[in-house]
Amino acid sequence: NGAATRSSVVWMRFANTSASVAQEETVAKKEATTAPPSTKDITSYWGIPPTKLVKEDGTEWKWSCFKPWDAYKADVTIDLTKHHTPTTMLDKTAYWIVKSLRLPTDIFFQRRYGCRAMMLETVAAVPGMVGGMLLHLRSLRRFEQSGGWIRALLEEAENERMHLMTFMEVAKPHWYERALVMVVQGVFFNAYFLGYLISPKFAHRMTGYLEEEAIHSYTEFLKDLEDGKMENVPAPAIAIDYWRLPANATLKDVVTVVRADEAHHRDVNHFASDIHHKGMELSQTPAPLHYH
Amino acid sequence: NGAATRSSVVWMRFANTSASVAQEETVAKKEATTAPPSTKDITSYWGIPPTKLVKEDGTEWKWSCFKPWDAYKADVTIDLTKHHTPTTMLDKTAYWIVKSLRLPTDIFFQRRYGCRAMMLETVAAVPGMVGGMLLHLRSLRRFEQSGGWIRALLEEAENERMHLMTFMEVAKPHWYERALVMVVQGVFFNAYFLGYLISPKFAHRMTGYLEEEAIHSYTEFLKDLEDGKMENVPAPAIAIDYWRLPANATLKDVVTVVRADEAHHRDVNHFASDIHHKGMELSQTPAPLHYH
Ligand SMILES: [Fe+2]
Ligand SMILES: [Fe+2]
Ligand SMILES: [Fe+2]
Ligand SMILES: [Fe+2]
Repeated sequence: NGAATRSSVVWMRFANTSASVAQEETVAKKEATTAPPSTKDITSYWGIPPTKLVKEDGTEWKWSCFKPWDAYKADVTIDLTKHHTPTTMLDKTAYWIVKSLRLPTDIFFQRRYGCRAMMLETVAAVPGMVGGMLLHLRSLRRFEQSGGWIRALLEEAENERMHLMTFMEVAKPHWYERALVMVVQGVFFNAYFLGYLISPKFAHRMTGYLEEEAIHSYTEFLKDLEDGKMENVPAPAIAIDYWRLPANATLKDVVTVVRADEAHHRDVNHFASDIHHKGMELSQTPAPLHYH
Repeated sequence: NGAATRSSVVWMRFANTSASVAQEETVAKKEATTAPPSTKDITSYWGIPPTKLVKEDGTEWKWSCFKPWDAYKADVTIDLTKHHTPTTMLDKTAYWIVKSLRLPTDIFFQRRYGCRAMMLETVAAVPGMVGGMLLHLRSLRRFEQSGGWIRALLEEAENERMHLMTFMEVAKPHWYERALVMVVQGVFFNAYFLGYLISPKFAHRMTGYLEEEAIHSYTEFLKDLEDGKMENVPAPAIAIDYWRLPANATLKDVVTVVRADEAHHRDVNHFASDIHHKGMELSQTPAPLHYH
């Protein structure tokens, strides 16, 4: 049962957290020795408490970009084949835009899936951030509750960024790829911003279809890893801590949990678009928070 | 000791969470009866699990915009008088811009502090969102870790938005105030966006000074409540759940914790500006997360 599994995972997550926090308390009492010496004086003036977290195995928590309680076990039992059949004009447009973007990406990357994943994640982390920001500004302007959607979309953006932080450990970008990312981000950020302002219904549907494509390309990635066409290297340390993978996890395990994440994003975005299709605002329906 | 207090609060928070999650698990097994009937079919198709959280006292958790584990006890022992003395040209400019914005606000609102708080919070929630978003895009573009600053700034934005959600329960905006908010947000969002792109050092310093002003105006607000010039009404329900206030808390308690929040934002933003002043990037120094 999916729901029960998720709940017990959440429980585990917080159980671990409590342990970490207890550790943190102990450590906070000692002198802080981790802050770089150059910022120590500012830190102490502004009273920012230096924190040093410890993992369950007693080793130091290495990441300042996420905390032990942000880590989770991906629900890999999620249905990967679910698809939203486009019926309205708007949905069909979204579907065909995404499908036509497939061709140039296929030509550019061929089967270099590591590279492809890395590049596509720099784009994938944009919609959640734009949507979350626009809903935040809307809530402020209209003195209205958000229904949790700001947070849900920002969580998605952060999750996508963690995918990037993971894949960049396995595939290093060339200078021309870095240049391409700048251009693509500039165009896509502005396009999505405008698109979301005009029709969030369309924007979420498009993201939903993008996620369906992401699932497809991670499945291809997995095939190449299984067939030995790509080396199944050990999982990067950041991935092991973020998805609570075993110490001997490999790239295959990472791709599997990332693909499960994409399936969750697919659900959230199609769900959001469906709410708009019913003529409702997102804020009228509680958002799926911590839906991994 | 501030650090110890904070730690034990964190512990409490998570201890409560575990309880809530256990409750959630129980509830998830029952049929969901809370989702509005019109979205029930979409929810079940996309497999979004309906969650129903329960408070410690057994009553239902009312808010979909934040969860029990997002609530906290504000550290009201924070030094309210700390001030960054402007020395560089840039800091002085930031200081005088903020000081000169004081005059029109004073004239517009006079001593109507409830109204003033509400209006200013719609502006206060912008810098964190803009900064967080720009750092997010930067991290993606440059394949770089964030040091936790994206999350820290987004947390600040969310905290400010919760201030607004609270004050709008006490003071209802007039139509011309709503219209003013639209205009001010349009101008301020774009100005801060550009400002942050050009000089995050300047942007964070300005926010730091804005927070110092916020502390001042909440102190005046408190004086008027103490002098009986304004009625010390009961605290809104959302404030009681967000700051874990006692059931009989009043507006005075709310203003006190909100003011403590502003002092924390002051520290974070001056700290961020100081890091830039040292010629460093924010990502090189771990961000203060969960700093309330
Ligand atoms: Fe992704
Ligand atoms: Fe995704
Ligand atoms: Fe505020
Ligand atoms: Fe503030």
